[in-house]
Amino acid sequence: MKKSALQIARAAYQPKLPVELTGSVTVVEGNPTQSVADQEDIKKLFPNTYGLPEIRFEKSSKNIVGKPVNAGVILSGGQAPGGHNVICGLFDGLKKINKESRLYGFLMGPGGLVDHKYIELTADIIDEYRNTGGFDIIGSGRTKLEKKEQFDKGLEILKQLDITALVIIGGDDSNTNAAVLAEYYKEIGAGVQVIGCPKTIDGDLKNEVIETSFGFDTATKTYSELIGNIQRDCYSAKKYWHFIKLMGRSASHIALECALQTQPNVCIISEEVEEKNMTLQDVVNYVADIVAKRAENGDNFGTVLIPEGLIEFIPAMKNLIAELNDLLAKTPEFASWTPAEQREFVIKSLSNNSSTVYASLPEGVARQLTLDRDPHGNVQVSLIETEKLLSEMVGNRLKELAAEGKYTGKFSPLHHFFGYEGRCAAPSNFDADYCYALGYNAALLINAGVTGYMSSLRNLTKPSVQWLAGGIPISMMFNMERRHGEMKPVIQKALVRLDGTPFQRFAAKRADWALSTAYVFPGPIQYFGPAEVCDQPTKTLQYEHLDK
Amino acid sequence: MKKSALQIARAAYQPKLPVELTGSVTVVEGNPTQSVADQEDIKKLFPNTYGLPEIRFEKSSKNIVGKPVNAGVILSGGQAPGGHNVICGLFDGLKKINKESRLYGFLMGPGGLVDHKYIELTADIIDEYRNTGGFDIIGSGRTKLEKKEQFDKGLEILKQLDITALVIIGGDDSNTNAAVLAEYYKEIGAGVQVIGCPKTIDGDLKNEVIETSFGFDTATKTYSELIGNIQRDCYSAKKYWHFIKLMGRSASHIALECALQTQPNVCIISEEVEEKNMTLQDVVNYVADIVAKRAENGDNFGTVLIPEGLIEFIPAMKNLIAELNDLLAKTPEFASWTPAEQREFVIKSLSNNSSTVYASLPEGVARQLTLDRDPHGNVQVSLIETEKLLSEMVGNRLKELAAEGKYTGKFSPLHHFFGYEGRCAAPSNFDADYCYALGYNAALLINAGVTGYMSSLRNLTKPSVQWLAGGIPISMMFNMERRHGEMKPVIQKALVRLDGTPFQRFAAKRADWALSTAYVFPGPIQYFGPAEVCDQPTKTLQYEHLDK
Repeated sequence: MKKSALQIARAAYQPKLPVELTGSVTVVEGNPTQSVADQEDIKKLFPNTYGLPEIRFEKSSKNIVGKPVNAGVILSGGQAPGGHNVICGLFDGLKKINKESRLYGFLMGPGGLVDHKYIELTADIIDEYRNTGGFDIIGSGRTKLEKKEQFDKGLEILKQLDITALVIIGGDDSNTNAAVLAEYYKEIGAGVQVIGCPKTIDGDLKNEVIETSFGFDTATKTYSELIGNIQRDCYSAKKYWHFIKLMGRSASHIALECALQTQPNVCIISEEVEEKNMTLQDVVNYVADIVAKRAENGDNFGTVLIPEGLIEFIPAMKNLIAELNDLLAKTPEFASWTPAEQREFVIKSLSNNSSTVYASLPEGVARQLTLDRDPHGNVQVSLIETEKLLSEMVGNRLKELAAEGKYTGKFSPLHHFFGYEGRCAAPSNFDADYCYALGYNAALLINAGVTGYMSSLRNLTKPSVQWLAGGIPISMMFNMERRHGEMKPVIQKALVRLDGTPFQRFAAKRADWALSTAYVFPGPIQYFGPAEVCDQPTKTLQYEHLDK
Repeated sequence: MKKSALQIARAAYQPKLPVELTGSVTVVEGNPTQSVADQEDIKKLFPNTYGLPEIRFEKSSKNIVGKPVNAGVILSGGQAPGGHNVICGLFDGLKKINKESRLYGFLMGPGGLVDHKYIELTADIIDEYRNTGGFDIIGSGRTKLEKKEQFDKGLEILKQLDITALVIIGGDDSNTNAAVLAEYYKEIGAGVQVIGCPKTIDGDLKNEVIETSFGFDTATKTYSELIGNIQRDCYSAKKYWHFIKLMGRSASHIALECALQTQPNVCIISEEVEEKNMTLQDVVNYVADIVAKRAENGDNFGTVLIPEGLIEFIPAMKNLIAELNDLLAKTPEFASWTPAEQREFVIKSLSNNSSTVYASLPEGVARQLTLDRDPHGNVQVSLIETEKLLSEMVGNRLKELAAEGKYTGKFSPLHHFFGYEGRCAAPSNFDADYCYALGYNAALLINAGVTGYMSSLRNLTKPSVQWLAGGIPISMMFNMERRHGEMKPVIQKALVRLDGTPFQRFAAKRADWALSTAYVFPGPIQYFGPAEVCDQPTKTLQYEHLDK
C-alpha cells in the first residue's frame, strides 16, 4: 500500500522505553497475590496459576541475554490504536534477548490459532507497521478461546512451530481466556507460557494494578478533536443542537474523557443514570431543561455527549427489553401482524411499568425494538440510534414546556456517531510508547519464564522513561460473575466510578458548562510539536493518579 | 474560553506572507477585463465597475504608508477553516498601512450590517483568534444582501462609523452580492469600497483567476483523516462496507479530493452521473458490481464515498422531485390519507418515467419524499440520507445477484456523514497562510482605492512566500443565469470538470482501487512537523496546476 507522508515520517519515530527496560533486567518478585474477590473459588479453578507474585523488572548492569524462543501473538476483538506497536515491541524484545528468536502471528484473531492460520513476522514485515494504526498486520477476530478442544487444537500448531510462548492482545474477556489457557497449558504440561496485554479503546480494562488499556488515549483524542470542531461550528452558527453518540457500550469512560477534554453542554454518564435509577424520561427531561435554560439566555445551540450503552444502563429499559425478549419468543405469530396490531399486543401484554415505558417511546424506536432481532431472538440494542431517540424525545418534551409557557426557543437537532473514526487512528505518542513498552515487556516476561501474567507498565502520568515495568498475575484481577446462567471467573470490568476524581471533576463543572458555553477545542493529535501538545496522557489517567 | 494546548501553541504561529506583501507595494494594472460570458448584459448592469483591470501588487522599496481608514468586515454563509485569519490579516494590513485605521466586525453575517449590529475589533480581540478555526469572532449568517433597502440601511451605519471600505468573506453568492453592492455604492457616490474574499469548503468558487477558495484544504484533510481511519478499521476487521457521505451539495470537489487522498474502493462524482445521464439504479448497480467482484476475491469489505448532492444531480431524480413538488402543491388533501393511499396516488399521478423511479425507491425514502417539505412546500432533499438509501438499494441489488448465482458474499453496511467535523477545524498551515494573506491583501486593495474586487493570491502550489498577490474585478467572473425565474448576473459555480486532471487521475485509477484495496491513511493535520507532512496543498490544486 502507498504510504501517506505522515506514515513515512512516523515510521522513523523511536518509542521511548522505560529506562529499566533499556538493558538487562533483574526480576524482583513481590508477595503472593490474591484475587480481588471470591478467593477460594478462584484458587480452586486455578490451582497452577493462582497466588503468583507480582513481578517488577529492575535495571541490571549485565548484558541482556536469554534463550532463543519461538513466540506467537494474537490480536483479539475490536481494533485499538497501537496494536501494531505491541507486536513491534514484542518482536524487538525477543530479538534483543536472542537474535535466533522467532515471532509468529495468528491470523484474524484467536480463530487463527484454532484453525492453524499464521504467518511468521519477520523484520521486513514489522518495519512496515511501526507506529501505525490498525490491526491489519495479522487481522483480528472475535472468536472466544474458551473450550478445551480449542486449546488442544491450538496446541497442535504451537508444537508444530515449536512455539513456547503465546501473547494475547485483548480486552477483559480475552485476558480472562488467556488466564484460563495459561492454567490449562500449565496443568497438562504443554510447555507454553501465555501472556496478556491490556487492549480496548473503551477504557474498561483497568484496576488497582493496570492503570489503563492501550488505545483509549488515541481514540478519545480523536473523538475530542471532532467534538471540538463541532463545538466551534455550533458556537459560530449558533443554531443547532448536536447530539453526539460515542462508542463504548459497557462503560462511559470514553464519553467522560471526551467531556473532560471538550467541556460540552451536556454529557450523560450511563453509570450515574443506573445508580440514580433514572428513567429514559428523566434523562430526556434533564437535557430538555438545559436546552430550555440556554434558550432563556438566547442560546439555541449546544452539544450533548451520549455513551453508546446508555439504553442498557437504564433500569426500566433493561426490564422492558428483557420482557420483550420473553414475550416475542413465545409469540411466533407476531411477525405476521400489522404494525398497529403488534403495538396493541405489546402494550397489552407487558407488565404495567414496561408497558408505560414502551408507550412513551417514539413510535419508530418502539417498533425497532420489536423488529430487529439477533439470531438468538433478542432485541439488537446496538442498532438503536440513541442519539436520535434522545433528540426526538427532547423535542417532544420541549413542545410540552412550550405549551406550559416555559420554553420559547428554537430546537434544531443534528446527529453524529463516532466510533470507527478512532479505533484505527495512528497511535498518539503516549499510545505508541505505551504499546511498544507493553510488547517489549511481554518479551521480558517470556524470558522470565512466567505464565498467566499481564504485561504491566505503571506510573503512566510520568514521562515514559520513568514508567515502572513488570507483570501482574491475571488471576489477581478475577472475581466470579454469572455468565449465561453459570458462575465464571472473569476480570472485573471497570465502570466509571462515581466517587472517582474524573467523574467528580466533571460533576463539579457540568452545571457551569451547561449554561455558560465553556467549549474547549483540542484539535487533532499532534506528533511532532511541543510536549504539552503532543505528550499529555488522558485527563482520566491524570485525575485517577490523584486518587492514588 | 479555556484554550487547548494546541490553540496556545498555534497562537504563536506567524503566517508566512508572500514576499511581495512584506513591505510597501506598487500597484500594477493589467488590461481592461471582460466577464466570462454575456458581456453586453453584464456591462449594462455594472456600468461603474465593469471592465476594470486586474491588479498585481509588486514589491516596492518605499515604506508602506497610507491614509487611516475605517473598514468593516462580514462573514457570510457556512463556516470554513481560516476565516479568523482573513480577519487577522486584514487587521494587521490596515494597521501596517496606518496605525490609526480601525476595523469593525458586523455580527452574525450580512444581517449585522442591515441591523446595525457590530463590534470594533481591537488588537486584544484579534490576538485571541489567530490561527484558530471557526467564525465565532463575529459569527456568520445566511441573510442575502440583495436589495436596495438593505444597501441603504447598511450605508447608514457605515456612515455613522465613518467606514469607507467593507470586506465580505463569502462564497459565490456572497461575492456576487458584494459586486452588486460595490456597483450600487459607486453609483450613488456612497464613498464605500467593497472587497470580496473567496470562502467555501465546497471548493466550488474557483476559476481561471481564483485558484481555490479557503477552507477547502483543511476541511478535505480533516475528512480524509477520518476516511483513512475508517479504511484502516475496515481493512483490519474485513467485514463491513462503509458508506460515507461528504458535505457539499452543489459540486463534488470534496468527494473527489478525499478520494485522491485516501483511494477508497468507490467514489461517486455527481457531475459524472449527470453527464452520463445515469439513473439511481445505474449508480446502485455500479456499486453492487464492485461489492460482488470484491466478494469473489474474498473481500467482503470496502468504502464508498458519496457527495451530499448526488440525488440532485441524477436527471431522473431531479424530474421526479420537480413533479412531486407540483403534484403535492395542488393536492392539499394528500396529508390526510393513509401511507398506502398516498403511495398509490403518487404512483398513479406521476409521469411514467417518474412513477417507475418512485416505485423503485426503498419505501422509507419514497415516503420521506412526500413527507418532509420545506416552508415553500418543496421536497427537502438535504434530509434524505443518501448513504443509507444507496446501501439499502445496493443490498437489494445484491440479493438479485445472489438469486442469479452471481454473488455469494456477505454485505454488512455502516454509514457515516462528515461535514460539521471539518468546517471549523483549526486551519492547516496552507489555509492559515492563505487566509492571512487574503486578508492582508484586502487591506492593500482598500489602500489602492479600488472597489468590486476580489482579493487574490495565485501560484498557490508554491511556498507562500512565492505567491502572487493582487485583485480581480468580480464582474470578470460573471455570467447570466436564471434564478427564481429571472436572469441574474452571478459568479459561475465551478463544478468538477470531467476533462480536468483531478478527475482524470481519479478515473484512471478507480478500477484498480475498486478491487485491489489501495487505501491510503493520511492521518490528522499536522502543524509542527516536516514540510512534506504539514505544508502540502490539496491534490486538486496540484493537479489543476498541471492543466495550466
